[in-house]
Amino acid sequence: MIRITFLGTSAAAPTVTRSLPAIALKREGVLTLFDCGEGTQRQMMRYGTGFDVSDVFFTHLHADHFLGIIGFVRTLAMAERAQPMNLYCPKGTARILEQAIRLGILDDRIFPIEIHELAPGSAVARDGYEVRAFEVQHKRPALGYALVEPSRPGKFDVERAAKLGIPSGPLFGQLQKGSAVTLEDGRTILPSEVVGPPRRGRRIVISGDTIPCEATAEASRSADLLIHEATFGDDDVVRARQTFHSTAAQAAEIARRAQARRLVLTHFSNRYANAPGILLRQARPIFPGVEAARDGMTIDIPLPDEPEQPPKNAQD
Amino acid sequence: MIRITFLGTSAAAPTVTRSLPAIALKREGVLTLFDCGEGTQRQMMRYGTGFDVSDVFFTHLHADHFLGIIGFVRTLAMAERAQPMNLYCPKGTARILEQAIRLGILDDRIFPIEIHELAPGSAVARDGYEVRAFEVQHKRPALGYALVEPSRPGKFDVERAAKLGIPSGPLFGQLQKGSAVTLEDGRTILPSEVVGPPRRGRRIVISGDTIPCEATAEASRSADLLIHEATFGDDDVVRARQTFHSTAAQAAEIARRAQARRLVLTHFSNRYANAPGILLRQARPIFPGVEAARDGMTIDIPLPDEPEQPPKNAQD
Repeated sequence: MIRITFLGTSAAAPTVTRSLPAIALKREGVLTLFDCGEGTQRQMMRYGTGFDVSDVFFTHLHADHFLGIIGFVRTLAMAERAQPMNLYCPKGTARILEQAIRLGILDDRIFPIEIHELAPGSAVARDGYEVRAFEVQHKRPALGYALVEPSRPGKFDVERAAKLGIPSGPLFGQLQKGSAVTLEDGRTILPSEVVGPPRRGRRIVISGDTIPCEATAEASRSADLLIHEATFGDDDVVRARQTFHSTAAQAAEIARRAQARRLVLTHFSNRYANAPGILLRQARPIFPGVEAARDGMTIDIPLPDEPEQPPKNAQD
Repeated sequence: MIRITFLGTSAAAPTVTRSLPAIALKREGVLTLFDCGEGTQRQMMRYGTGFDVSDVFFTHLHADHFLGIIGFVRTLAMAERAQPMNLYCPKGTARILEQAIRLGILDDRIFPIEIHELAPGSAVARDGYEVRAFEVQHKRPALGYALVEPSRPGKFDVERAAKLGIPSGPLFGQLQKGSAVTLEDGRTILPSEVVGPPRRGRRIVISGDTIPCEATAEASRSADLLIHEATFGDDDVVRARQTFHSTAAQAAEIARRAQARRLVLTHFSNRYANAPGILLRQARPIFPGVEAARDGMTIDIPLPDEPEQPPKNAQD
């Protein structure tokens, strides 16, 4: 299971109900953060994500997206964390993170923190998934991230295998891994006789701060979940462009073109923080199932059983 | 009226119920902060203090006491604040605040921020009060602060003035300001005939992080309110000394010796955050009226009518 917890869903400044941007993603016990705005450590306590973070991916280094890492790292150091932490950020912005991490540290000891700049198109490989960085369009160098799993072997049809007289045991495993096997009676069984088509891996995309852009649509093709910023509504479409942000309708259009399976809007300007319904009404005609994130909201993405082809009604 | 709002009452790391250290003090419309831990701007929204801060006094530059200034300043800048802000800190620590304020700022414009180092014993004079810095004992250079008002003229006895045949009008004001006046019939009236003894100003003391120390007791003599850190309880008295913090009983002893009128404990270690009652039980035998701060708690200190002498039962 992958569980996503929205830790902060506000843009620029917090509100009483929305903290600054941060998303926790837990996959098979591995906890990853995407952005870490001021107050994130307290949100993690509030919503019970745990603190055992290995990787933090920063979409960009605007203050509202990274200031929380400073206090979070201090708290972990006080708790005598020893294992290293990786911080990822766009090209040319590592210096800001270095300054942040060092800020006010004199004699205090701290666990190893490695800061890595990511070029658009590069990926960080982890056990069972990778996190791909793609370039989005914001005022500063900015990335979106796609967590992508490879496809899994297809479902093994135990009944069919029994009918074919394949003895249960290691041959099942060989077939599922894609190798043909020869039975004692000399018959050769091909994997395709008992194993379904490969099942797609999951794809979860986080847009970061951006105007609507092609890179996000491409990265989000058939995604299980697209988390797209929707700082503004239709009334502020000019302001959205000026400040390099998206409207809810623009986010919905990206999700529609990408045939994303699910769209959650986040990063709301204060003027919409208490009324995300306005944004949903504007986005729904374009992407009917659109949802609005709120602090503490969790989304579980189970392993899909479908084959890896995109949905049939794909457009453009 | 002076209103104090506790914005954060935790030590070192936040908890679900307690944010990091910050105290707002509003006096006749002027809002002052003492410390500004991570998350303070959101606490100010939550508890309705307003954002119009002129002065921020930092007790010391440990991360839990200052990180919130970074995001707070960014939010004010986005709201197009123009008026300057003063930040005060202990000698030798301005550089950390400078780095904090500049962190990640590239082309963004920001209102003027003046950072001042305060030597122990120095004071910042403001209209109707001053904030005096005193040296406390912590791991880093650390200050406590005393907000001190001068005494006010005594109460004017209107009935007595009428009996003496003083015509109401400008003569009343001259007498209250301490000048003798001569009536038309030639009699001279002394201020002491119609004006009571000078009434004491208010004194509010914030210990910052410290072991129990003489400077705090001196600064707190007859204080209307002493806000003293009580990171630990009796069981942790050794740990308190090692980490340069106070226990609740030690804080109570300082308040008792100073004959403070009111004592509020704050800055609780996580182990006491949900059970401040333990700390109160340990402090109460020493200072019976002791209180424990909680986030959002407000205390109003009205103008006192008493004369400026210390309470009669003063000791040592």
